[in-house]
Amino acid sequence: MLKNFILALTVTLVVFAGTATCFAGDPPKPDPTGASIGTAADVVNATSGAPTADDMEKMAATEPLAVKLADVVGHNRIAINMVWVLFCGFLVMFMQAGFALAETGFTRAKNAGHTMGMNMMVYAIGMLGFWICGFGLQMGGSGGAATLGGGALLNEEFIVSIFGKDFGLFGMKGFFLGGDVYDSTVLTMFLFQMVFMDTTATIPTGSMAERWTFKHFIVYGFFISMFVYPLYANWVWGAGWLSQIGANFGLGHGVVDFAGSSVVHMTGGVAALAGAIVIGPRMGKFRADGTPNAMPGHHIPMAIAGCLILAFGWFGFNAGSTLAGGDLRIGVVAVNTMLASAGGSMTALLYMWFRYGKPDISMAANGLLAGLVAITAPCAFVTPISSVIIGGIGGILLCMSVLFIENTLKIDDPVGAISVHGVNGAWGMLAVGLFSDGTYGDKLNGVEGAVTGLLYGDASQFMAQLVGVSVNIVFVFVVMFIFFKVSNKFVKMRVAPELEQEGLDMAEVAVIGYPEFTINKTHR
Amino acid sequence: MLKNFILALTVTLVVFAGTATCFAGDPPKPDPTGASIGTAADVVNATSGAPTADDMEKMAATEPLAVKLADVVGHNRIAINMVWVLFCGFLVMFMQAGFALAETGFTRAKNAGHTMGMNMMVYAIGMLGFWICGFGLQMGGSGGAATLGGGALLNEEFIVSIFGKDFGLFGMKGFFLGGDVYDSTVLTMFLFQMVFMDTTATIPTGSMAERWTFKHFIVYGFFISMFVYPLYANWVWGAGWLSQIGANFGLGHGVVDFAGSSVVHMTGGVAALAGAIVIGPRMGKFRADGTPNAMPGHHIPMAIAGCLILAFGWFGFNAGSTLAGGDLRIGVVAVNTMLASAGGSMTALLYMWFRYGKPDISMAANGLLAGLVAITAPCAFVTPISSVIIGGIGGILLCMSVLFIENTLKIDDPVGAISVHGVNGAWGMLAVGLFSDGTYGDKLNGVEGAVTGLLYGDASQFMAQLVGVSVNIVFVFVVMFIFFKVSNKFVKMRVAPELEQEGLDMAEVAVIGYPEFTINKTHR
Amino acid sequence: MLKNFILALTVTLVVFAGTATCFAGDPPKPDPTGASIGTAADVVNATSGAPTADDMEKMAATEPLAVKLADVVGHNRIAINMVWVLFCGFLVMFMQAGFALAETGFTRAKNAGHTMGMNMMVYAIGMLGFWICGFGLQMGGSGGAATLGGGALLNEEFIVSIFGKDFGLFGMKGFFLGGDVYDSTVLTMFLFQMVFMDTTATIPTGSMAERWTFKHFIVYGFFISMFVYPLYANWVWGAGWLSQIGANFGLGHGVVDFAGSSVVHMTGGVAALAGAIVIGPRMGKFRADGTPNAMPGHHIPMAIAGCLILAFGWFGFNAGSTLAGGDLRIGVVAVNTMLASAGGSMTALLYMWFRYGKPDISMAANGLLAGLVAITAPCAFVTPISSVIIGGIGGILLCMSVLFIENTLKIDDPVGAISVHGVNGAWGMLAVGLFSDGTYGDKLNGVEGAVTGLLYGDASQFMAQLVGVSVNIVFVFVVMFIFFKVSNKFVKMRVAPELEQEGLDMAEVAVIGYPEFTINKTHR
Repeated sequence: MLKNFILALTVTLVVFAGTATCFAGDPPKPDPTGASIGTAADVVNATSGAPTADDMEKMAATEPLAVKLADVVGHNRIAINMVWVLFCGFLVMFMQAGFALAETGFTRAKNAGHTMGMNMMVYAIGMLGFWICGFGLQMGGSGGAATLGGGALLNEEFIVSIFGKDFGLFGMKGFFLGGDVYDSTVLTMFLFQMVFMDTTATIPTGSMAERWTFKHFIVYGFFISMFVYPLYANWVWGAGWLSQIGANFGLGHGVVDFAGSSVVHMTGGVAALAGAIVIGPRMGKFRADGTPNAMPGHHIPMAIAGCLILAFGWFGFNAGSTLAGGDLRIGVVAVNTMLASAGGSMTALLYMWFRYGKPDISMAANGLLAGLVAITAPCAFVTPISSVIIGGIGGILLCMSVLFIENTLKIDDPVGAISVHGVNGAWGMLAVGLFSDGTYGDKLNGVEGAVTGLLYGDASQFMAQLVGVSVNIVFVFVVMFIFFKVSNKFVKMRVAPELEQEGLDMAEVAVIGYPEFTINKTHR
Repeated sequence: MLKNFILALTVTLVVFAGTATCFAGDPPKPDPTGASIGTAADVVNATSGAPTADDMEKMAATEPLAVKLADVVGHNRIAINMVWVLFCGFLVMFMQAGFALAETGFTRAKNAGHTMGMNMMVYAIGMLGFWICGFGLQMGGSGGAATLGGGALLNEEFIVSIFGKDFGLFGMKGFFLGGDVYDSTVLTMFLFQMVFMDTTATIPTGSMAERWTFKHFIVYGFFISMFVYPLYANWVWGAGWLSQIGANFGLGHGVVDFAGSSVVHMTGGVAALAGAIVIGPRMGKFRADGTPNAMPGHHIPMAIAGCLILAFGWFGFNAGSTLAGGDLRIGVVAVNTMLASAGGSMTALLYMWFRYGKPDISMAANGLLAGLVAITAPCAFVTPISSVIIGGIGGILLCMSVLFIENTLKIDDPVGAISVHGVNGAWGMLAVGLFSDGTYGDKLNGVEGAVTGLLYGDASQFMAQLVGVSVNIVFVFVVMFIFFKVSNKFVKMRVAPELEQEGLDMAEVAVIGYPEFTINKTHR
Repeated sequence: MLKNFILALTVTLVVFAGTATCFAGDPPKPDPTGASIGTAADVVNATSGAPTADDMEKMAATEPLAVKLADVVGHNRIAINMVWVLFCGFLVMFMQAGFALAETGFTRAKNAGHTMGMNMMVYAIGMLGFWICGFGLQMGGSGGAATLGGGALLNEEFIVSIFGKDFGLFGMKGFFLGGDVYDSTVLTMFLFQMVFMDTTATIPTGSMAERWTFKHFIVYGFFISMFVYPLYANWVWGAGWLSQIGANFGLGHGVVDFAGSSVVHMTGGVAALAGAIVIGPRMGKFRADGTPNAMPGHHIPMAIAGCLILAFGWFGFNAGSTLAGGDLRIGVVAVNTMLASAGGSMTALLYMWFRYGKPDISMAANGLLAGLVAITAPCAFVTPISSVIIGGIGGILLCMSVLFIENTLKIDDPVGAISVHGVNGAWGMLAVGLFSDGTYGDKLNGVEGAVTGLLYGDASQFMAQLVGVSVNIVFVFVVMFIFFKVSNKFVKMRVAPELEQEGLDMAEVAVIGYPEFTINKTHR
């Protein structure tokens, strides 16, 4: 069986470099000024009552002024979308501050400079890695976004053809944002995709906090931003193969992940899991009998402020993923986003209350995030009521997962990154396949009709989501596990025990987090 | 007299469910995708030179392309407004982080987790309460916002008719954001109104900080978001009776509150007053002779950072209340907003300096907020110079009120919430009636002509504002006072003395705010 | 030579009050409502395919609907720009919180209330000073921004004519935002310019931290916001003489500073230098032998969070400086901005690592800012690759400058403000003259053709930049040095030694930053 498969693969393997179907005439030219982005062409079929291409041609003779006016109308339309995408991208970038504060607040004072430092530098490191080749691999063959007036420059995907079906594997254009993509549309897309990738890259700094060498962290930062994130992102968002299993194999609309429950959060969460396993628990986390010691975060106000910043930035994350301010579904997306966060924090609060007799505010803060992660994939496809349910289940899954990972798996994840992002990312993906109500997503990934979940009658979308989740777990876990194991041979991953005991700040990042506050180390 | 009134009321009481005047033909249908929101109809009379409905009809034959183009133009117009309202709403949501940091920084370290936790959970609790029925009660009969392309779905108000005048009391549609309002416009409105309500719900957590049980706080959170806020908000913003006393009784434009000096801030401040009275002062706040002890905030940088976040979010609060990015008054609103904050912080700083010989930076931070609260109602109706004056008076009122409440009334309000939000909210409402310059607000609440204050010649608007302020004080104080008194019988409101002494964190929210920093408790 | 020059100056000095060329008929009238801002006129030549004025006139007869439609299209166009400028302005305002946290975190605990307080009050003080006369001096003759639909009200510049060339020196309209500029466009411009000015005003609070009297700081705040910043800003951005040395003397496009490397950052950095010299180093900073003592910041997480907030706000700073959301170059500007920050933080990290054997995370945080300052002037004119280089060089310059200022010049700059803003501001200005790639800036400052740097073949732009940098250094340093020296005679600049020893908080701003945390003062 496998042998036949390999034979067939070998025989039919045909590589198409470039999806040359986008244009017949001259190749598209980059427009770095943006002056010729957004034209009369962007008015055609823009709304249900908008002029068709036919209208524009026929009426040009009798209504020359209207045709010229259409140019400005089309430019306005694209400008609205670009303003929206940029602002949403800025909000997502601000989430770096949220992660930094949440992770630092939930860990210990002696490592505050180090934890904060990783969260800041991952922004720079990830950005450079993504600029070098990550963006090209992810979006180089994506075809760009019509809502931004073009991006047809992103037209080179490495495609493998098996049994007559095309499987896009990675893009091949856009490296270093060189001259061939020096275009305002492409750069706007870069910004938006970059800040999403950086979210992923940040997540494992939580599960591996308080024991990771800064040097190895840097190697990791480049690796995930240059290769791991871009590949899975290409498959789902960059016109890659997972997005095509709907058109190719009838599995719904292919893998659907509106704003990144899998692409961003699962990737981060699964990498966080692999890292936490390889690096091992913090000294003193588990007693000789295997029971865990509590290691409470040193600064709860900081941690909660971080979570509120994340909830703020998440509006950009989800609602920005329309890539269009003119797609008025944005109102639904934004409301679903916040409702799920409310559901998640309430159920996490109540779960701990019923189980341990007290509302646990740090679990509720993580529950807020769990709800947000869970709604990230389905936010555009479900009703407000479903969003509360999805978030609410997310909050319970969070609590159960945190307890399971710590008590049963004996894995030390200082901030709950695996449960928040990994487990709830998977849940969010499945929720698309369950709750999508069939009102939105027509023609997504080239499939007619709106995205519809199991509860609304379409089982095939649920299957597609299962495929997406499975591929993410297997691909990311295997690659990251091997990466951590192998790279550890060359660059030591874990700090020396005496350093871990003392705190990483001075030795690893040349500062002391709080050189003046008296730190009480008795219970550590 | 009263008897006759009750008789008349009984006789003429007629309940109209639904203001069925909005449409003659088919009832409006919700559009969750937003695809059919923003059409050629939204171009009609959009600007002074815009086509009229008549133009559109007559010229359709000769200019078919222009008519189709108008569809895209109208969609762009609505998209600009929706993008504006959503972004402004996001900024207002971020104010939760500002409140959390300001309140926590201005209170004591031993309760930092608890204070922070209330401020985070109020976001979730308030949102759920508002989603369940608050939004429906507030906006269910509001008619929606034309600037967002519709919302005509919000068409059921409970109206009492007395002596031939209609008094809208509450809305009756939109509960749980169910299918009949599953519409992008309505949901956008929900988001914007929800974050305003949550601001109100947060305010009393300041005046009742450091002694409130988390359990009772949750009960409170649902009560105010489901009933109290929505009712007053309906009366002023949801087409309710206070907004109609202009059209009905010739009192200016009815009660005018552009962005919520009364609806949001007074409601919060008056509730904060009721709560502080019922719960009583913190242990040790007042000496046996009744003189107050200073209980300084434990983290001034945190508190001031919170105030700066609030000032940032306030731009969304005020300028977003046009509900339209295409209403270019937004520039005036934003500038007035910031000028008032400058005025408020300067006068508060100088007042304390002259009175006590030192500039008091924590009072100046509250003065910044006082100026913002004061300008919230009048921000769209006054000149920049008036804004500096309004804010400046606000800063002085703040100082006087803080000292009066503490020294004379012997009420313990740890963060000055009553003075910042209650007193300055009332001042802001009156300022509308004094400083409105007659340049903006034509047809507001169905009254012709621009909003004009006493200093510009219209005394009736000032009367309307007095009515609004009075109704708010009476309604909110009475309802909240009764609520606190009664609910306290069922769910204990105040923590045990030994817990208050020790700090609420571990017992109430299962964390210690700062488990590692050594806390100096000698002076507490 | 000099004598002749003075003679010629005396002879030909002619003052033109008002650039009356903007309009021939009635003077423009302010529109505070914004209702008549953005009309059909704003459609004319808006894009390459847009109708010309000729089209509009000729086709009015045959296409009356299209002409009316154009009114809405024009309004939409201006609304997009205004929404963009306001939101970007809000983001820049939020940078105040970033500065406050960064400066406070990088200084000592005993002065935390004071450092935070200066950073908050500079917002209010600067705003009032700018409202009184700063804005009028800066922008009163600028002609306003066509992208905001007008501002032609800003039409009075004080101009000196020498040898037949006009030299604009300062504006003469807009003081107190009085009735003659009570216009939505002008106020929007005020907001955007004000927040830029406030950034400048904040910078010296860093270099003079921990020893400055609050009273003198207030005097300084009014002085720089009313006079110093506005003058240089007029010369570069307000149609003043530096912007005209291209048109007048063939030096490229005149001094080009897209978003303020010189106008904002150098002005702040050079003032910071003058202040640090005059006020002298902190007690104990330098040993008897002149070698410096380290005085590490007391709260690294706070400082880094501040830097991340700054990086967030900087998107508004740079991309907002198009003054148009419809100028789609915004995508390029935003991406260049973030790439430079990545470059700056990486090189600063690596420089310290190679030199001292450890990555220094606080230097990397400043490197992030250095990259941002450096890209601020060139962000609209260079490629992404150049941006990484510009930022990267900025990070190295930062490290070298910090070490040089401390070790060689023996100047005490607690947060590195001089190096971050002054040195990198100058570098950013020169980078415009080196890296501008000739794709953007056509007709800027009245010069045909795009802005082009030395590496792309135009040496004259580099000359212009040298002039801009030199004028900034000389003007700002001389004025501020004299100001500090003279004002110190009347209002004491530096606190008493015992106060400096104890900490400034209680005596200067009536709070204790952290009254409860135990502060370890042994090493201070």
